[in-house]
Amino acid sequence: MSVLVVGSTAFDDIQTPFGTREACLGGSSTYFSLAAALFTQVRLVSVVGEDFPRASRDLLAAHGIRLDGLEVRPGKTFRWSGRYAADMNSRETLAVHLNTFGDFRPKVPPAFRDSRFVFLANGAPATQDSVLDQVPPPEFVVADTMNLWIETARDALLALLRRVDGLILNDEEARMLTGEKNLIRAGRRVLELGPKLVILKKGEHGCFLFSNFFAYAMPAYPTERVVDPTGAGDSFAGGFMGFLSTCDTLSLWNMKRAIAYGTVTASLTVEDFGVDRLAQAKLEDVERRYRELIQFVAV
Amino acid sequence: MSVLVVGSTAFDDIQTPFGTREACLGGSSTYFSLAAALFTQVRLVSVVGEDFPRASRDLLAAHGIRLDGLEVRPGKTFRWSGRYAADMNSRETLAVHLNTFGDFRPKVPPAFRDSRFVFLANGAPATQDSVLDQVPPPEFVVADTMNLWIETARDALLALLRRVDGLILNDEEARMLTGEKNLIRAGRRVLELGPKLVILKKGEHGCFLFSNFFAYAMPAYPTERVVDPTGAGDSFAGGFMGFLSTCDTLSLWNMKRAIAYGTVTASLTVEDFGVDRLAQAKLEDVERRYRELIQFVAV
Repeated sequence: MSVLVVGSTAFDDIQTPFGTREACLGGSSTYFSLAAALFTQVRLVSVVGEDFPRASRDLLAAHGIRLDGLEVRPGKTFRWSGRYAADMNSRETLAVHLNTFGDFRPKVPPAFRDSRFVFLANGAPATQDSVLDQVPPPEFVVADTMNLWIETARDALLALLRRVDGLILNDEEARMLTGEKNLIRAGRRVLELGPKLVILKKGEHGCFLFSNFFAYAMPAYPTERVVDPTGAGDSFAGGFMGFLSTCDTLSLWNMKRAIAYGTVTASLTVEDFGVDRLAQAKLEDVERRYRELIQFVAV
Repeated sequence: MSVLVVGSTAFDDIQTPFGTREACLGGSSTYFSLAAALFTQVRLVSVVGEDFPRASRDLLAAHGIRLDGLEVRPGKTFRWSGRYAADMNSRETLAVHLNTFGDFRPKVPPAFRDSRFVFLANGAPATQDSVLDQVPPPEFVVADTMNLWIETARDALLALLRRVDGLILNDEEARMLTGEKNLIRAGRRVLELGPKLVILKKGEHGCFLFSNFFAYAMPAYPTERVVDPTGAGDSFAGGFMGFLSTCDTLSLWNMKRAIAYGTVTASLTVEDFGVDRLAQAKLEDVERRYRELIQFVAV
C-alpha cells in the first residue's frame, strides 16, 4: 500500500491574526504527504531549488516519505506569501515566486510507477495530465484544482476530468466550474464532467461527497483554535487518500471513513502555523480525534 | 402534547432571484406554527390587524393551530419587505411597518397556561420575558433572538437567557453575543450565559447543537432548489420543538432526532415562497425527507 503524490513544495510567509511566520515549509505535496504518511507509504514527486535545506528533507524522510522523485534544480524553491483576514475565511496573496516550480515537469521514477493510488495536487491541468501518461492506469486517481485553471485552462481541465476517478475542489471553485450557485446542484454537475467521485470542500463548514450512487455530508472537526488554515485542503486530501489506500475495497463505508480521517488531518494542520502541528501528530492523536468526530456527527 | 408559541404574524413582500411575491402570509409564529403542527397541537399567541383575512385564519386553523391567543387589534397587520442577494445568503430589508405588532403585549389565554413546551420567537427580550411571568414553569422553554436585541437590549436579553432552557441563534448573532469569532467557542460561550442548550444555525451549512454534555453537528438537507429562505429559521424551530413535544424524554437521542426534523421542515419552507410549500407538506413528506437526511449524514 502506497500513495503517489505530485505537486508543489514551497516555503511560505504567513500572516494570520495569531502572528507572522516566515519560510514555513509548505506546498501542496508537503501537506498531503505528511497527512497521508500517518496511514501509508507516500511517494513524492516534486521540485525544489538548491536552497532546500537538509532539515526539511530529513523531516519528510523521517515520516517515511520516499523522496526519489524530489527533483533538485538550479535556483530557488517556490515561495508564497499570504495574509489571512480576521475571520480566516479569506486570504490575500502578497507575493508568489514560482522559482524552480515555474517549469515543473514531473518525472515519475520507475520505482513509483506501480502506485495504485495517485493524487494530482493543484497544478496546471496539462502538467497533471502528463503524470497519467507516465504510469499504468492506477486503481484510484484524484485531482485537485483551483480557480486559476478553471478560468485559464478550462479545456485542459475538462480533458483531465475525463481521466480521473475523483476531483477535490472547494465551494467557490465548484460554482465557477459549473455555473451553479446551489452547492448540491454544483456538486452533481461536476459528476457529469467525468469523475466518479466529487469532494466539495467548505472549510469550517466541512465537506460534501457526491457520486452517482450516494451523497454524503461531513461537518468539520469542532476545533476551537484555528491558527493558520494554510494547507488544510491538501491535509484533508492526504488523510483521505492515505487511509483509503489501506482499505481492501473502495466501498461507501470506507469512503465515509476516509472522509472522516481527512477531516481529522485537516483539523490538526490548522491548529498551528505551517506543518508544525501536522508533523508532530501521531496515529493515536488521529484515532482520538476520529472518535471525537464520529461522536460529534453520529445520528 | 402541545407547544405554545409567542411571536409575530406578518405579511411579507419578498424578492428573490426566483421572482417577487407580495403580501405572503409570514411572521415568526406563522412559520413556527405550521412546522410544529406537523407533529403536535400548536397554541398561538400573536397579534394581527383588522385587515387579517379570513383565508389566512382558516389556513392556520386547518392545521389544527389553536387561535385563542391571536389578538385582533385596530389597524393593520405587521408588514415586512425584503430582497435577497443572488446567492441567497444575505438580504436587505426594504421596509418594515410594525403596525399592530409595534406594541405587542402578549397575553397567554388561560387555556394555554399548562403548555409544557414554549417557544419565544424573536422579539424584544422584555416582551419574551413577560410571557414566562404568565405561565407556571414549563418543562422546556426555547427562545430565538436577533442582532437588534443583542445590540440594543443586551441586559434584558442576558436576563432572559437565565430563564430559558434553550436559545436558537445564527452564526453572526452568536459571534456578536459572545465576541468569539470561532463558532465552536462562540456556541460554548453562549452556554455560560444560562441556556442548557444552544442551537447555532448556519443556513445552508446546517447547525450545531451545544450542551454541557455533548456537541452535535447536523448538515442542512441537500435541497437543490432554494426559492425563498424567509422563515427557514422559524420553520426549523417549529420542527424541532414540535417533534420534541411528542417525545417521552429530552434525551440526547431525541434531541438529535428533533434537530433532524427541524432541518427537514426548514428545507420544505425554502423550496417555495412564504409558507406555500410548508403549508402543503404532509407528515409523510417529512418522514421521507427525514430518511433521506439520515442517509445523507449517517456515518
